Amino acid sequence: MKIPEATIRRLSTYIRVLATLEKKSIEVVSSGELSNLCGFNSAQIRKDLAYFGEMGVRGVGYYVSDLKREIEHILGLDRKWNVVLFGVGNLGHALISYNGFRRSGFYIRTAYDIDPNKLSNLPAEIDTTSDSNELKEIINDHGIRIGIIAVPPESAQSAANMLISAGITGILNFTPLRLKVPDTVRVKYVDFTIEFETLAFYLSKN
Amino acid sequence: MKIPEATIRRLSTYIRVLATLEKKSIEVVSSGELSNLCGFNSAQIRKDLAYFGEMGVRGVGYYVSDLKREIEHILGLDRKWNVVLFGVGNLGHALISYNGFRRSGFYIRTAYDIDPNKLSNLPAEIDTTSDSNELKEIINDHGIRIGIIAVPPESAQSAANMLISAGITGILNFTPLRLKVPDTVRVKYVDFTIEFETLAFYLSKN
Repeated sequence: MKIPEATIRRLSTYIRVLATLEKKSIEVVSSGELSNLCGFNSAQIRKDLAYFGEMGVRGVGYYVSDLKREIEHILGLDRKWNVVLFGVGNLGHALISYNGFRRSGFYIRTAYDIDPNKLSNLPAEIDTTSDSNELKEIINDHGIRIGIIAVPPESAQSAANMLISAGITGILNFTPLRLKVPDTVRVKYVDFTIEFETLAFYLSKN
Repeated sequence: MKIPEATIRRLSTYIRVLATLEKKSIEVVSSGELSNLCGFNSAQIRKDLAYFGEMGVRGVGYYVSDLKREIEHILGLDRKWNVVLFGVGNLGHALISYNGFRRSGFYIRTAYDIDPNKLSNLPAEIDTTSDSNELKEIINDHGIRIGIIAVPPESAQSAANMLISAGITGILNFTPLRLKVPDTVRVKYVDFTIEFETLAFYLSKN
C-alpha cells in the first residue's frame, strides 16, 4: 500500500502535538481535540491513521502515549539516526544548534567543509573533516545514511555526488538546486523561498 | 475560486525552473520538458496552470518568459516585499545571507533582537533595533507586512503578538510552535524536522 507523502508529513505534526499533550500528562485525546490542535479536520486525521490499522477507541478517542509511540514506530523514529552535515556556514551553524533534530532522534555526527577554518568551535561530539576521503570513511564507520546539504547552490550537485558515493541514501537539500540522483536515493528540499512566495500570494489577494 | 495551496507551492517551483531556462535563452518549453525539470507530471502541470486561464499553446508548449512573468504576477512577485526579521541568532544570520529571498523580491529591511550585541555587523541596509516600540514604528514607516520569527520556540508566541500588533499580516515561523493568531494573519511554518521525519520513514522501509 502506497501511503501519500502528505499523510507522512501530517504524522510528523501529530507526533509533535501528542508530545505536548504527553508532557501535560493528558492520557486521552478525542479526534475533535486532536483536530483543533493540529489544524487538520477530524475526517482527515481518521483517514491518515486508518492507513496503519485501528488506532482509536470509539467513544473515547486516542490514547496519547500509545498513539505517539505507534506513529514514532511507523515513521522509524524509535531509533537514532546519525546525520552528516555538508557545509558549515551560517546555515550549518544554525542547524547544529537547532535542538529540534535531536528531540526526534536525529544527530549531526559529522560535519564537512572544504574550509577547515569553518570547522573550529563545533561541539565536541561532532567529527569534522575537510578531506573527502576521510568523510567517506567516517560515513561508513558510523553507518550514516542521511546527509544535509548546506553549501551554496553551485556546489550542491558535487556535494550530493560525494555523499551518494559514500553511501548516503537520504538527502535534505537546503539549496534550491534540483539534484540529479539515482532512484535509490531520496531527496527532500527545504526551500524557504516557497514559503515566502506562498505568503506573498495570499497577502497580495488582500 | 479557491486555489489549492499545493498548486501555489508548485507555481513557486515552476518559476524557478523557468528562470533557469530563461538564463539559458530557451524560449519555448513543452509540458513534457517542464515535467522532467520540475518532477511533477504533465497532467498536474496543465491542471495547475489551468486555474489561471489558457497559458500554453497547443503543439508548441509554453513561452518561457511569458509564463514566468504570468506566474510571478499571480504570486504577487512582480513587486518588492519588505520583511522584518525577529531574532538574529545563527538562523537569523543565515537568513540574512541567503540570496534566494532577494532574487524573489523579498528584502529583510529590519532586524529585531532583544540582545543589542546580536545586531552588530549586519549589512548596512538593514535597520536594527532592540526596542519594541521602535520596531513598531519601523514596520509602520516601511509598510512591512511580512515577518520572520527566528527566536527560540518559547519566545515565538510573544514575538508573533508583537509583530501582529505592529501590523504584520504574514508570518514565516521557523520554530515548531503552533502560533495562535487572528484569522486575518497567515502563518507559514518552516519545520526542518518534518523533512527529516519524512526521510526517516522512507529510509526505514528499506
